[in-house]
Amino acid sequence: MRPYTFWLSSSLAAALLTPLVPVTAGDPLGFSPGGARAELQWEAKFKAIPSADTIRETIRRLSAYPHHLGSPHDKENAEWILARFREWGLDAHIERFDVLFPTPKERVVELVAPSRFVARLREPAVKGDPTSGQLDLSLPPYNVYSADGDVTAPLVYVNYGVPADYEELERRGISVKGAIVIARYGGSWRGIKPKVAAEHGAVGCLIYSDPRDDGYWQGDVFPEGPYRPRDGVQRGSVADMPTYPGDPLTPGVGATEGAKRLPIAEAKTLTKIPVLPISYGDAQPLLAAMGGPVAPPSWRGALPITYHMGPGPARVHLRVRSDWAIKPLYNVIATISGSESPDEWVIRGNHHDAWVNGADDPLAGLGALLEEARASGVLLKQGWRPRRTVIFAAWDGEEPGLLGSTEWVEAHADELRTKAVAYLNSDTNGRGYLRMAGSHILEKLANEVAESVDDPETGLTVGKRARLASIHRGSPSERKELRGGADMHIGALGSGSDYTPFLQHIGIPSINLGFGGEDGGGVYHSAYDDFYWYTHFSDTSFVYGRALAQTAGVMAMRLASAELLPYSYTNLASTVQGYVGELEKLLDHERDEVMELNRQIEEGTYAAIDDPREPMVIPAKKDVPPHLAFAPLRNGADALTRSAGRYADALRAARQRGDTVLASSSLRAVNALLVKSERRLTDDDGLPGRPWYRHQLYAPGLYTGYGVKTMPSVREAIEQHHFAEADSAIVRLGGVLDAEAALVDSAAAALEAASR
Amino acid sequence: MRPYTFWLSSSLAAALLTPLVPVTAGDPLGFSPGGARAELQWEAKFKAIPSADTIRETIRRLSAYPHHLGSPHDKENAEWILARFREWGLDAHIERFDVLFPTPKERVVELVAPSRFVARLREPAVKGDPTSGQLDLSLPPYNVYSADGDVTAPLVYVNYGVPADYEELERRGISVKGAIVIARYGGSWRGIKPKVAAEHGAVGCLIYSDPRDDGYWQGDVFPEGPYRPRDGVQRGSVADMPTYPGDPLTPGVGATEGAKRLPIAEAKTLTKIPVLPISYGDAQPLLAAMGGPVAPPSWRGALPITYHMGPGPARVHLRVRSDWAIKPLYNVIATISGSESPDEWVIRGNHHDAWVNGADDPLAGLGALLEEARASGVLLKQGWRPRRTVIFAAWDGEEPGLLGSTEWVEAHADELRTKAVAYLNSDTNGRGYLRMAGSHILEKLANEVAESVDDPETGLTVGKRARLASIHRGSPSERKELRGGADMHIGALGSGSDYTPFLQHIGIPSINLGFGGEDGGGVYHSAYDDFYWYTHFSDTSFVYGRALAQTAGVMAMRLASAELLPYSYTNLASTVQGYVGELEKLLDHERDEVMELNRQIEEGTYAAIDDPREPMVIPAKKDVPPHLAFAPLRNGADALTRSAGRYADALRAARQRGDTVLASSSLRAVNALLVKSERRLTDDDGLPGRPWYRHQLYAPGLYTGYGVKTMPSVREAIEQHHFAEADSAIVRLGGVLDAEAALVDSAAAALEAASR
Repeated sequence: MRPYTFWLSSSLAAALLTPLVPVTAGDPLGFSPGGARAELQWEAKFKAIPSADTIRETIRRLSAYPHHLGSPHDKENAEWILARFREWGLDAHIERFDVLFPTPKERVVELVAPSRFVARLREPAVKGDPTSGQLDLSLPPYNVYSADGDVTAPLVYVNYGVPADYEELERRGISVKGAIVIARYGGSWRGIKPKVAAEHGAVGCLIYSDPRDDGYWQGDVFPEGPYRPRDGVQRGSVADMPTYPGDPLTPGVGATEGAKRLPIAEAKTLTKIPVLPISYGDAQPLLAAMGGPVAPPSWRGALPITYHMGPGPARVHLRVRSDWAIKPLYNVIATISGSESPDEWVIRGNHHDAWVNGADDPLAGLGALLEEARASGVLLKQGWRPRRTVIFAAWDGEEPGLLGSTEWVEAHADELRTKAVAYLNSDTNGRGYLRMAGSHILEKLANEVAESVDDPETGLTVGKRARLASIHRGSPSERKELRGGADMHIGALGSGSDYTPFLQHIGIPSINLGFGGEDGGGVYHSAYDDFYWYTHFSDTSFVYGRALAQTAGVMAMRLASAELLPYSYTNLASTVQGYVGELEKLLDHERDEVMELNRQIEEGTYAAIDDPREPMVIPAKKDVPPHLAFAPLRNGADALTRSAGRYADALRAARQRGDTVLASSSLRAVNALLVKSERRLTDDDGLPGRPWYRHQLYAPGLYTGYGVKTMPSVREAIEQHHFAEADSAIVRLGGVLDAEAALVDSAAAALEAASR
Repeated sequence: MRPYTFWLSSSLAAALLTPLVPVTAGDPLGFSPGGARAELQWEAKFKAIPSADTIRETIRRLSAYPHHLGSPHDKENAEWILARFREWGLDAHIERFDVLFPTPKERVVELVAPSRFVARLREPAVKGDPTSGQLDLSLPPYNVYSADGDVTAPLVYVNYGVPADYEELERRGISVKGAIVIARYGGSWRGIKPKVAAEHGAVGCLIYSDPRDDGYWQGDVFPEGPYRPRDGVQRGSVADMPTYPGDPLTPGVGATEGAKRLPIAEAKTLTKIPVLPISYGDAQPLLAAMGGPVAPPSWRGALPITYHMGPGPARVHLRVRSDWAIKPLYNVIATISGSESPDEWVIRGNHHDAWVNGADDPLAGLGALLEEARASGVLLKQGWRPRRTVIFAAWDGEEPGLLGSTEWVEAHADELRTKAVAYLNSDTNGRGYLRMAGSHILEKLANEVAESVDDPETGLTVGKRARLASIHRGSPSERKELRGGADMHIGALGSGSDYTPFLQHIGIPSINLGFGGEDGGGVYHSAYDDFYWYTHFSDTSFVYGRALAQTAGVMAMRLASAELLPYSYTNLASTVQGYVGELEKLLDHERDEVMELNRQIEEGTYAAIDDPREPMVIPAKKDVPPHLAFAPLRNGADALTRSAGRYADALRAARQRGDTVLASSSLRAVNALLVKSERRLTDDDGLPGRPWYRHQLYAPGLYTGYGVKTMPSVREAIEQHHFAEADSAIVRLGGVLDAEAALVDSAAAALEAASR
């Protein structure tokens, strides 16, 4: 699954209330001067080990055959990875779960009126690409967790199929009730599209890849270029991931042999209507046969047709039948025990299953992870002993819905709650800029690590390159901040890769890492994401694979060996202040919008601008959003800012005293507090309507899926105009921030005491 | 030629320093209470006369055959119009000029490498459309005033072919030297494209209509819908109109029989390289054969290909040969002599020549004008006597470059300088909203007139409908201003229709009128702009033709009969203040951009963001723009604001005293001053490098053509970083504003004296 990655971004407009220490100041975060010296020596040795050639060979080997969950090569790859971990001296095993994984038995898409056309629904082999023709070993294009169904109905084009698109349809008086919708990929997690379609009464859903989004409009198509060819199809899960990820039958518990399973009919994350993905070659005749209003400009793709919204006259027959089987999945887990704090865990993961051959997704990331494991083995032989336990995980079943990671986290939830210090994730990887998103208590560490790895193309550090790129495209205020040496902001995580159970279910500080921006392409989840494609169009010399191994490796090493956990609360606090400001602005914006809408309705503006030949429904007046009492949030954020400042002062004082303090064994008590700090941002009751999601700062949006909603309980209530809910969410979230502030305050006090 | 029209727009962000009188306050501008009563009665009679059916019949008759300059039906149409004017009782004649009008002898476009393709270069007949097959009577697609030439060269895609596009090419190290460029229509006057191409060393130029801009991307194509079909081609002039319009051989003088003519080789407005327009059907194989970098997103059209910039490998052979003949043109002029001030002229014009059948361009506008003339004849029989002389003009030769109007204006320049009170232009017309652009001393009149005409679709006045639409899409500050009752701002005029010689050569208050916004299409300058197209897709019931006749007719009547010329200097002054503010901001923006560019070059940002597989040229540092002394402009604008306020006060006082004052014969002296006021905004030396253009507030941009540059001498100098030139232009323009202020002040004094 392609992670929904963020650039190191400076988009957070919040004033930085506490000055951030420039990244160049002093030793790595959390280390005493002596500890830092040793650490930097080990890191230098580590960084010399990852080899582009080895990564190339790993990716070549593991992408040789399709290796989706449940396939022979999925299991074989897991066993090969296990053998490597063991060969490198790590304590490794395979951990199996049994999960619901439907695979297609019947797939039909045909235009039945006004003319006839039968969709091809398959990806032909490409000449010169040796792995593109393994049709007997691969799953054909489909959307896993689609309902079974057989429907014939008029077609309605719904653009990306997100809620705002249905508002646009309603303005034209177009209903999808009883219709089959055709949505284009993009704009949301694909599972949102059938969910929203069904909520509006549609009976079926087609999802196609428009050439505007990842085909010829973007660049030359495969095999001449990296973009999606005419018959390429994006497979993928349509589970309702924002409700819960993982096995649909075992929410909240590991899908072990004896686990209690829901009947399929009760699994809440399966779609209500049949869904199939199609290529633009198959979509064009369907779209060209449509009538109704011309779609608005932002809906129009790059097919050589006029895009119409429907409904009809195109009528489509859609049939989907799956084999609803339980399949085994194989997580490969390797452990290096910590020398001093074995019960503090740093976990590094990347999935190994793919939709087809998966050279980019997931092997470009997994190739780096395996190099980190190999390098760790080399270092261990040289005497390196991480203070904390390091766990490498190659997850299975990520593509259907983060199955391997989610079941593992659910199975080990209690232990993880006590022990986990951080989770570092990767997935795809390409050429260009370091992209990092995750927990903001890791933001300073991320900035420091980015300054210690060299960019293969420019000779700059990857941090410096990302910083200059942010300056280049930043606003004047962002440029000023970045030039002043402030930490680059990392984005927050929504969902789409294996960090979700760690971060959002348990509250483990998590970060997602990868390179990209110079590696455009359109083979995502198709048979063409293979070694031929990757070695012609992406990180062809695998030097960014090496850079990813160096970046994630150094980050894991620092987390594993810092005397004091390398968290920064000033970064967290300034981010939180920014979120509160955004929510206030959001509410003001909603209020202004409604007031202006109502006024224009009263003035007769909508009647005046109506074109009688393209009539629109005049909107109804709305209730004006009330003012909300944001004080609990502001107070919580301010308390956190104060505590974070106190902690930063205490840390600075401790650093100035040097080895004697930071090496002190009383730091163990401080660490015991710090390890709880991301957990304290969760709530056992979870988010409204989706108890699985417990983190109160970060969640995938209910109607975005990939895209994050920060402070989701408050933000989504405001967006949906549930203001009573927003009011109580503000109070609860204020309490969470107060509790976090109290925890950080007690950590600061403990650090002050340790320094005395 | 399609006029480059502006909406009634509220885009002018300038503070309105003098409060504007709401449009509903009191009598029409310039009338005494008694005069107003009579005027409004005549207007009511007038507005009842124009008939949609008559307009339909006029357009049908005049569009029955191709009627380009020099064709039999051009002359026949002129004679028919003359007969109608005379039938209605007007004093009419044909005024002939003889102009250079090359027509094609040879046209060849062929791809010669890497494959072969011969362009079709013609527009086939469309089934069901009776006039689309008159190929023997029409000119084939070509660009008039293209140089002759025969070249074979690699192709470079230059987007719209404006200067910014060549900067984008340079960043990629792509030169057009020795190449044939292919540009898409849009983004500028088409004559800019070969001009800029030749300036950069290109040897040929193709211009095609991308379906993104007026083809299937916009909507269904002809004959199923109104947009440009695959083989439709936009003909048109490529003269360097921003240097001077009209006959290329007689700049500044009328092209009468004995006029002194330049040798063709010395005519500055002909292109330096051969140019041909092609359809997207012909363009696609050429563009698809190109290599080089993928074009940036904003360059990509809607053809189902990846757009590349070149150069090559596509090589194209282009041959253009014309018959460089002198042809006669026939302006039809009809006059109604003024009863009291026959030497004050109100001129109403629209061209009659078309590229092919021209139902929309120009007959939709001409149909309205002829109804105004017919209605005037009816009113004359009922005893109506306009105070001033009204002239109706049906221009010939507008399409090749405003030939008929320009030669007429040049031939009558001295008389026009003394007598002309206003010029009202129209050209195409369609369905939707009233669009007005022109001299800002006519802005208040335009607002008043818009409130007196009913919109056919909504029952609102056309002014109210335009106002509500402006509120709907305006910024909060624009909405506030409009809701406060301020006059809607009219846009300034660049070029593209017959107002240019009146406004920009002589300094006659001019306005361009038309309806549109609900009448999209893509048959402009093709064989498909015909009666079939118009009656299926545009103002099919001709009710907006009637509304245009009512709007232009009422405006002409008020200008012709107001005791005091209905000019508003407060509108002019606030517009001028806005322009000065824009220039100051423009300079600040240029300075900020250069400083930021230089800083990023110093920081190494451009090196850091360079993708080695798509290398870009690192830009060179630029000189930082100096501060300029804007005081002369500010002082001039402030003086004008004060004079305008004094004039408005004097007018208000006069109105309050009623008939005795405004009817006074001493108003003749005031009018004698007012009539000079737009002329006072011109300079006999013209604009830098183009002496034909004399207006100091409005000109077509040297590199935009259609698009206006306000305060052009200063604005273009700043844009081109000619700061010494800008400095002296500011001083000169400040002087022009001072002189205008002094004139308005003396008019105010004269009005005060008349009221005593």
